[in-house]
Amino acid sequence: MTSPAADFAPFSKTHLLGISDLSPLDIENLLDRANAWADRNALPDNKHAILRGRTHINLFFEASTRTQSSFEIAGKRLGADVMNMSVSQSSVKKGETLLDTAVTLNAMRPDLLVVRHHGSGAVELLARKVANCAVINAGDGSHEHPTQALLDALTIRRHKGRVQGLRVAICGDIAHSRVARSNILSLSALGAEVHLIGPATLMPPAIERMGVKVFRSMEEGLEGCDVIMMLRLQRERMSGAYVPSSREFFHYYGLDAKRLARAKPDALVMHPGPMNRGVEIDSVVADGEQSVIRDQVEMGVAVRMAVLEALAENLDRTKDNRKPGE
Amino acid sequence: MTSPAADFAPFSKTHLLGISDLSPLDIENLLDRANAWADRNALPDNKHAILRGRTHINLFFEASTRTQSSFEIAGKRLGADVMNMSVSQSSVKKGETLLDTAVTLNAMRPDLLVVRHHGSGAVELLARKVANCAVINAGDGSHEHPTQALLDALTIRRHKGRVQGLRVAICGDIAHSRVARSNILSLSALGAEVHLIGPATLMPPAIERMGVKVFRSMEEGLEGCDVIMMLRLQRERMSGAYVPSSREFFHYYGLDAKRLARAKPDALVMHPGPMNRGVEIDSVVADGEQSVIRDQVEMGVAVRMAVLEALAENLDRTKDNRKPGE
Amino acid sequence: MTSPAADFAPFSKTHLLGISDLSPLDIENLLDRANAWADRNALPDNKHAILRGRTHINLFFEASTRTQSSFEIAGKRLGADVMNMSVSQSSVKKGETLLDTAVTLNAMRPDLLVVRHHGSGAVELLARKVANCAVINAGDGSHEHPTQALLDALTIRRHKGRVQGLRVAICGDIAHSRVARSNILSLSALGAEVHLIGPATLMPPAIERMGVKVFRSMEEGLEGCDVIMMLRLQRERMSGAYVPSSREFFHYYGLDAKRLARAKPDALVMHPGPMNRGVEIDSVVADGEQSVIRDQVEMGVAVRMAVLEALAENLDRTKDNRKPGE
Repeated sequence: MTSPAADFAPFSKTHLLGISDLSPLDIENLLDRANAWADRNALPDNKHAILRGRTHINLFFEASTRTQSSFEIAGKRLGADVMNMSVSQSSVKKGETLLDTAVTLNAMRPDLLVVRHHGSGAVELLARKVANCAVINAGDGSHEHPTQALLDALTIRRHKGRVQGLRVAICGDIAHSRVARSNILSLSALGAEVHLIGPATLMPPAIERMGVKVFRSMEEGLEGCDVIMMLRLQRERMSGAYVPSSREFFHYYGLDAKRLARAKPDALVMHPGPMNRGVEIDSVVADGEQSVIRDQVEMGVAVRMAVLEALAENLDRTKDNRKPGE
Repeated sequence: MTSPAADFAPFSKTHLLGISDLSPLDIENLLDRANAWADRNALPDNKHAILRGRTHINLFFEASTRTQSSFEIAGKRLGADVMNMSVSQSSVKKGETLLDTAVTLNAMRPDLLVVRHHGSGAVELLARKVANCAVINAGDGSHEHPTQALLDALTIRRHKGRVQGLRVAICGDIAHSRVARSNILSLSALGAEVHLIGPATLMPPAIERMGVKVFRSMEEGLEGCDVIMMLRLQRERMSGAYVPSSREFFHYYGLDAKRLARAKPDALVMHPGPMNRGVEIDSVVADGEQSVIRDQVEMGVAVRMAVLEALAENLDRTKDNRKPGE
Repeated sequence: MTSPAADFAPFSKTHLLGISDLSPLDIENLLDRANAWADRNALPDNKHAILRGRTHINLFFEASTRTQSSFEIAGKRLGADVMNMSVSQSSVKKGETLLDTAVTLNAMRPDLLVVRHHGSGAVELLARKVANCAVINAGDGSHEHPTQALLDALTIRRHKGRVQGLRVAICGDIAHSRVARSNILSLSALGAEVHLIGPATLMPPAIERMGVKVFRSMEEGLEGCDVIMMLRLQRERMSGAYVPSSREFFHYYGLDAKRLARAKPDALVMHPGPMNRGVEIDSVVADGEQSVIRDQVEMGVAVRMAVLEALAENLDRTKDNRKPGE
C-alpha cells in the first residue's frame, strides 16, 4: 500500500522541536499529511510498511499514558519497531545526566526519538546531541507541545474548513501551559484571531506582544468566538497561590452552557484532556453537541503519523558506516 | 498459514464480558477454537497474520503481570499491534473518569480492548461506550474473569476428555473471587457437579441458588471429586476479619496429600496462581503428579488467542468513514 | 536478507549463563558473530526475519532501562515478538517463588528468556526449570553479566584489532561488580593481562588466584595499560562502610587526565554506564578523545543480536507435542 505522503512536499526540518521553528507553509504541510492519514485511518487495514526497519523510541521523563499511547499507535501503524523508555524509574534516579542518556540512546541508533521532559528546552538540548535521528518534542516543561497544537489545528480545519479568520479563545492556566503556548503560535501563524482568558495569576506578563487579546472575564472573551479551547488546571495550582479553590475557579472561569452561549452558536468546544469535570469544564458542555474533544484524540494519532513519516523521509538513509574509533 | 478457526461457527457475541452471557454452545465454540490453538502452539512457528493491522490494547487498572503477558503473547502471535496501558500510574491519578478514558481510547480506534478493573461492572460500562471495538473482560472486581474459567474448562477437557458429569470442588475464598464465580457458571453450564468448600466468612450468602453444594469441611467436600480447584487467599484476608491467620487457614482449608486422597485417585489439582504455598496449598501437592497448574497457564494463551480471533471475526470491517463532526 | 550468521560455527551452549562456562573458542564465536552484526547495523535497513515467530521475554527482577532496551532492540531487529515483564511490581510482591514464575513462563512457551535478578545464581536456577527455551543472564547479583563482558571485548577488538597481549586495568568497586567478574574471566580467556585497581574494602579476598595483578594505587596500576575500564560506584557504598565519601573516592581512585597519562597514549577509556561524573570519572576524560563509552553501548546491541541468534539456532525446533497430562 502506497503512502498518502507521496503527494506532499518534503518537510523542511530534521526535528520537530516547537511550532516557533515552523513557517505557515511547514504547518500546512504537516496538516495536509495528517488530514490524509485521518482519512486512511478510518478504513479497515491500518498497517503500513513505511517505517519498516526503523527504530522509534518514546523517551518519557514524565509519565503520560495518553500522549505516549498516541505516538506508540502511530509508530506501530507505520510499521516501526516502537520502544517505550520510562526514564523516571531508572537512570535518572541513578544520577545520570540528560546528555549521557542522549549518548546512550544515540549509540542504539534510533531513527525517531519522541521525548517528553519536565525541563523547558531539554528536548532541544537532546536534539543537538543525537546523530542521524529525528527528535520530536512531546512536551517540554512549560515551553512547547507542538503535536498538540497541530492536532488542535487539524480538528478545527476538518470542522470549519479553515483556521484563517476564525476567532479562537484559549481559557484558563495560560502561564504554565505548553499547550497554550504552542497553540498561540500555530493559530497566529495560520491567521486566526486569538483571545486569551484567565485570572491575572495565570496569565504570563506582556503576553499581548504575541499578538493576542487578553481578557479577565469569560463573558467578554468568548464573545463571537468560533472555537473555545479549555486548558487543564493542574491540581497543584488549585489551593492557594494561584487559585483560591477549584470551586472558585469554576465559578469565574469554568465553561458551562450559559457562558458557551456567548460564543457563536456553532462554536467548537475543545480540551486537551484529561479533563477536570466541574473545575474548568461542566459535564453538560464536555459531552454536548459542540464538543469535539473525542475528535482531538483521533486527530492526535493522524498528526503523529504525519510527523513521524515526514521526519523519516528526511533521515539520511546512508547511515554512518565507520567502525567505532575510526 | 490458514487459521484453525476456518472450521468453527461464528461466535455469537461482540464482546466477552462474562460467562453469564454465554450459552453452553458459545462456551463449547470457544473451547473448540482454543483446543485447536493449543495444538498449533505446540508446533514450531507460532506467528500468524490473522490480526495483522488490528490494534489490541491491554488496559489494566490493576497490575497483573501474568494475565497481561498471556493476552500480550496471544495478540502478538496472531499478528496484532499490541499496546499495554497501565492506567494506575497515569490518568486515574489525574482524576480522569472511566468514561473519559473510554472516549479517549475509542478515538484511537482500537479493534480489541482487554480490560482489568477493580470495580465490578466497570468493564461492561466501558463496553457500552466504545464503537467498532470488541471488549474482553480480564477481571472486574469480584464479578467475573471469563478467560480464566475458559482456560480451566479447557484444561479439564484435555485431561478428562469432557466436563459433563464430573464432580469439581472449588475451595477457599469463594466470596471475593471472580475466578470462582466465572467457574461456577461455566462448569454448571457444561454439566459438571460443583462443590464449594470454605469457611462461612468466605462463602457468599445463598450461593446454593446457583445450583452448587456447599461444604464447610474439606474432607466431606472433596469426597469423590474428579477435579480440585484451589483459590488464592488474598493476603489482606489473612489477619483478623475473615481468617484468623494463614497457619489456621492451612490447618482447616489447605490442600495437602492426606486431603487430596479423599478425592478420586486420578483427580486433577488446579490453581489460578500465583500460589501461596503453605497457605492454601502444600508444595507436595502443587508440584505433584496430579497437578495441572502448569497446563492451566499454557491453556491460557490458547484460550486468549481463540477469544481474540473469534471476536475479531465479528468486528465490522467497514469502520466509520465519517470525518469528525459530520 | 540472509543472516551474517550463515558463516559461523554453531555455538556450543544452550544458554548463556556466564563467561565462566565458555571456552575461548565460544567467546570468539560470539564476538565474530557480533562483529558482523555491528557492521550490518550501520547499514540502513535494520529489520531481519531470523527470529520471526520466536517469543523473546525480558524478565527483569531489577529495573534497568539501558540493558533491557538493548535486548529489546536486538530482539525486535531480528523479528522476534519481544515482551517485557517487570516482575518487581507484580508476582514477587504477591509472594510467588522464583520457581513458580519459571513454571508460569515455561507454560507460555518462550523461545528466548533474558533474565536479570538480584540474587547470584538465580538465573542458573531458572534455566534448569525451563524447557525448550534459551536463557540469557542479563546480570545476577554480584555473580556475572556476560553480555557486558562480550560487548567490552568487542569494543576493544574493533579498536585495537585484538585482545590477546593487551594490558587492561579494571578500576573501582571490584568486590561487588558482576561486570568486573565477567570481564576478568573473558579478558583472561582471550589472553589479556588484567590489572585490578581499588581500595582494600572493595577488593575481593584472594582475587589474585584468578591470574590478575592487584594494585592499591591508580598511578601504579595504570602504568603501560592499553585499556582502562572504570566501574560504577554504587551510591550505597559511598557513605561510610566502604568509602569515606564520594569526594574522597575521586581523590584516590577517580580517573582524571593526569592519571590517564600513566597509561599508553592511545589507551581506551571505558565505562559500563551510567556514569557518576566526578566520582569515578572526570568529565574531561569521559568525553575525551580516548573515550569509547559510546561505542560500548552500540556494541551492546550487536552482541545481544549475536547471542539471541546463536542460541535460537540451537533451540530444538520440534517442540513438545504432547497434550498436557499425557
